[in-house]
Amino acid sequence: MAQPIITLTTDFGYDSLYVGAMKGVIYSWHPAAIVVDLTHSVAPQNIRQGAFLVLLGTSDFPAGTVHLTVVDPGVGTDRRAVCLKVPEAGIFVGPDNGLFSYILDKYPDLTARQITNPSFMRPEISRTFHGRDIFGPTAARLAGGASFEAVGPLVEVATLLKLDHLWPEHLTGQVLHRDHYGNLITNFSRKFFAQHEIPLENSGVVVEDFYRIERFNESYGYAGSGEVIALFGSSGFLEIARVNGRADNHQGKKIEVGQTVRLLVKLSNG
Amino acid sequence: MAQPIITLTTDFGYDSLYVGAMKGVIYSWHPAAIVVDLTHSVAPQNIRQGAFLVLLGTSDFPAGTVHLTVVDPGVGTDRRAVCLKVPEAGIFVGPDNGLFSYILDKYPDLTARQITNPSFMRPEISRTFHGRDIFGPTAARLAGGASFEAVGPLVEVATLLKLDHLWPEHLTGQVLHRDHYGNLITNFSRKFFAQHEIPLENSGVVVEDFYRIERFNESYGYAGSGEVIALFGSSGFLEIARVNGRADNHQGKKIEVGQTVRLLVKLSNG
Amino acid sequence: MAQPIITLTTDFGYDSLYVGAMKGVIYSWHPAAIVVDLTHSVAPQNIRQGAFLVLLGTSDFPAGTVHLTVVDPGVGTDRRAVCLKVPEAGIFVGPDNGLFSYILDKYPDLTARQITNPSFMRPEISRTFHGRDIFGPTAARLAGGASFEAVGPLVEVATLLKLDHLWPEHLTGQVLHRDHYGNLITNFSRKFFAQHEIPLENSGVVVEDFYRIERFNESYGYAGSGEVIALFGSSGFLEIARVNGRADNHQGKKIEVGQTVRLLVKLSNG
Repeated sequence: MAQPIITLTTDFGYDSLYVGAMKGVIYSWHPAAIVVDLTHSVAPQNIRQGAFLVLLGTSDFPAGTVHLTVVDPGVGTDRRAVCLKVPEAGIFVGPDNGLFSYILDKYPDLTARQITNPSFMRPEISRTFHGRDIFGPTAARLAGGASFEAVGPLVEVATLLKLDHLWPEHLTGQVLHRDHYGNLITNFSRKFFAQHEIPLENSGVVVEDFYRIERFNESYGYAGSGEVIALFGSSGFLEIARVNGRADNHQGKKIEVGQTVRLLVKLSNG
Repeated sequence: MAQPIITLTTDFGYDSLYVGAMKGVIYSWHPAAIVVDLTHSVAPQNIRQGAFLVLLGTSDFPAGTVHLTVVDPGVGTDRRAVCLKVPEAGIFVGPDNGLFSYILDKYPDLTARQITNPSFMRPEISRTFHGRDIFGPTAARLAGGASFEAVGPLVEVATLLKLDHLWPEHLTGQVLHRDHYGNLITNFSRKFFAQHEIPLENSGVVVEDFYRIERFNESYGYAGSGEVIALFGSSGFLEIARVNGRADNHQGKKIEVGQTVRLLVKLSNG
Repeated sequence: MAQPIITLTTDFGYDSLYVGAMKGVIYSWHPAAIVVDLTHSVAPQNIRQGAFLVLLGTSDFPAGTVHLTVVDPGVGTDRRAVCLKVPEAGIFVGPDNGLFSYILDKYPDLTARQITNPSFMRPEISRTFHGRDIFGPTAARLAGGASFEAVGPLVEVATLLKLDHLWPEHLTGQVLHRDHYGNLITNFSRKFFAQHEIPLENSGVVVEDFYRIERFNESYGYAGSGEVIALFGSSGFLEIARVNGRADNHQGKKIEVGQTVRLLVKLSNG
C-alpha cells in the first residue's frame, strides 16, 4: 500500500513563515512524508469558510489521507485538539472549533479522539501555534504509521463543535467562497434541491443587494459575454458567475463571503 | 530511470479549492506521483499568457516530464482535450484552445492525440472542471506508465488551435507577463533579433503610452536607481525593468499584460 | 538515513515563471529531489526581510536540509555565490549579500565556501538568474550527495556580508514581517529581554506613529475584540496583533515593514 499523503489547509497565507515552520516539523517527525498544499489562503480566522474548503478540497483524495487543517483563532484557550477518523476518507487533524462542521455533517458515523498523548506533540507547546506544536506532529505520526487509538481518549461525536446555518434555511443560504475567477460559491448543494424537491427549471437566484438571476445555466460556455449566470459548479454547489468577467464585483462594490443568497422558486401553473 | 514528474500550470489561483481537487485526483490515480506546482496564477482565462508561461515555465524540466496545463474558459463546449508529445521535452496535457501555441511553434514536429479513452477519465465528467475529470487523470496515467498511444486517436497537428500574433510583427510586440518585481516581459526573443539581423546596440524600446528607452542594458546591476531599462531576461525575452523599483507602474497608471511594445531601430550612417 | 530535503525561500512570487524554472533545474540535476516551498513572497529585493524569514522559516527542519534562498538584487554584479554549512541545521545556499545575516548571528561557528566549481553550475550562466543557473544546481548536487568541500574554496566567515541593525538598539527595533493575519513581527526576541534583564511585566511597546501598548499579553485568546496587543509569537519574537482584526492597518494607514518599534520600560519604585 502506498504511504499516506498529508494535505494542508490553513489560513496561514503563502507569504508567511508558518507554512515553512509546520512543514519543517512534519519532515522532522516523518522524513519520508508526502506533503501536499491544498490551500493556505482561507480568509484569516474564518472558520466557516475553512470548514467549507476542507469539505470541498479534500473530497478527491485517496482514502487514508491525513488532512491537516488549521484555522485556529482560539489557539491558547481551552478549545480541544482533535482527530476525526472517516474510513472512506481519511483522518482529519485540527482544532475542535467548528472547522470540521461539514465533515461531521457528511460523515456522522466518524470516530473522534482528543489529542492528549505527549508523544504526538513537541515537548514545548506555544500558546499561539499549535499547527507546529501539536497538529503537525500528530499528522506526521499518523502518516508514519502510528495508531489512531494512541492519539488520546475517544471524544463523543455529539460534543464536537458544529457551526449552525451550515445549509440554507427557508430558501436562504450564503456565499461561502469567492474563487480566483470571481465566482461566488454558495452553500446550496444539488442534494438540497433533491431533498426539497425543488425543480431546477423553475428556479432563480437572488444575491441580496446585487443580482437577480431568473434561471439556471448548464455551463460557462453557453451564455453571452458579461452575463451573470447561476450554475452548479464542479463541486456540486450553486455558483454565481459572470461570463468572461468577475461576479464578485458589481458597480464598484465587492461581494464578500457571507453575503445572503435566496432561491426563487416559481409556482407552476396547474 | 526516475519516475516522471507532473507539473501544474493553471489559472485556478492559490486561494482556490480546484488545486486541491485536481491534486487529489492525481494522487488517487497514481499514489506515487511527484507533483510540482509551477504556477496557479495565470490571469483568469488568459490563454495567451498561459501559453507563454507554459513555454517558459516548463523549459528546464527533465525530458519525459508530464506538463498538466489548464486555462480553460471553453470548458463544457466542444473544444478538444489533447495530449502533445515532444520527445526532447515531455508530454503536455490540456485543452486544445491555443494554450499550446508557443509549444507548437517551438516543436512543430510533435505528435498529438485527442483524449477519448474513458479509462483516462473519471466516470462522471462535469461540464465545468475537466482539470479534475479528464486532464488530471490523463496526466496521472501517463506519469504512471500508460502509453501515449492509448490516450486516443492521432490529431493532425495543423488542426490544433494556434493563436495569432505569437511573435512581434513590423517591430511591434506586446507585454505577456508582469512578474513579482514589476518587470514587464515581452514577446521579443533574442532569436527575433538574430532572425531579422537587428543590431542590439542600435536599438531602443517604446512601451506605448509609457516609456521610451533609448538603449539596452546587460543586467540589473549596472544602472542608476529608478532608471527604466530594457534588457534580455533569463528566459531569453526582452524585459522592461525599473532599477530598485517597479516598471509596471508609471505615474499612478498600471501597465497591463497586452500593452503594445515597439522596437526602435536606428539606421547606421554609412 | 532519509534523503535531504531542499527548501526554497525566494522573492520570486507565486505568480512567476522563475519558481518553475528553478524547480525544473533542480529536478533535472537530481530527479529524486524532495523540494519544499517555504515562501516565494519575500518583498521584492528586500534582503533584510528575506534574512529574517530564512532564520524563522528554516529553524524547524531536520539537520542536513539544504536551504536554497534567493533574494538577489545584485545578481550580475560581483557579489559572491556562497554555501554555509551549519552541522546542527543544514546547508544554506545563496548570494553573499546579507541574506544570511541572522544565520551568521545565530551560528557564528559555521563554515562557508564560495561556489566556483563549474560542475555545480549550468554551462551557461545568465546575468539575471543565478537561482536557476548556480544556486539551484548547487542545492541539487548537495542534496544528491556531492561533498560540501567540492563546491569551492573556503571563505573567511568574517568577510561574509552581514547587515547592521539586526537587533534592537537603545530599546529601538523595527517591524520585519507582516503576516497573513495582519500581525506585525518585530526583531525584539525573548533573548533580548533576557540579555538586558528587562522585566516583561513592567514593559510596553510603541509602534512609532501608530500604537502605544502599555503591557504584554500571553496569547490571542485572552483579550477583548478589536484590542491591539503585544505578545511573544510562536517564533520567539515580539508581535503586535489586533484581536479579531488586523494590526497592520490603523485609521486607513498601512504599517509597512521597516516601521520603528520602541520598548517602554517602566522603572519600578523602590
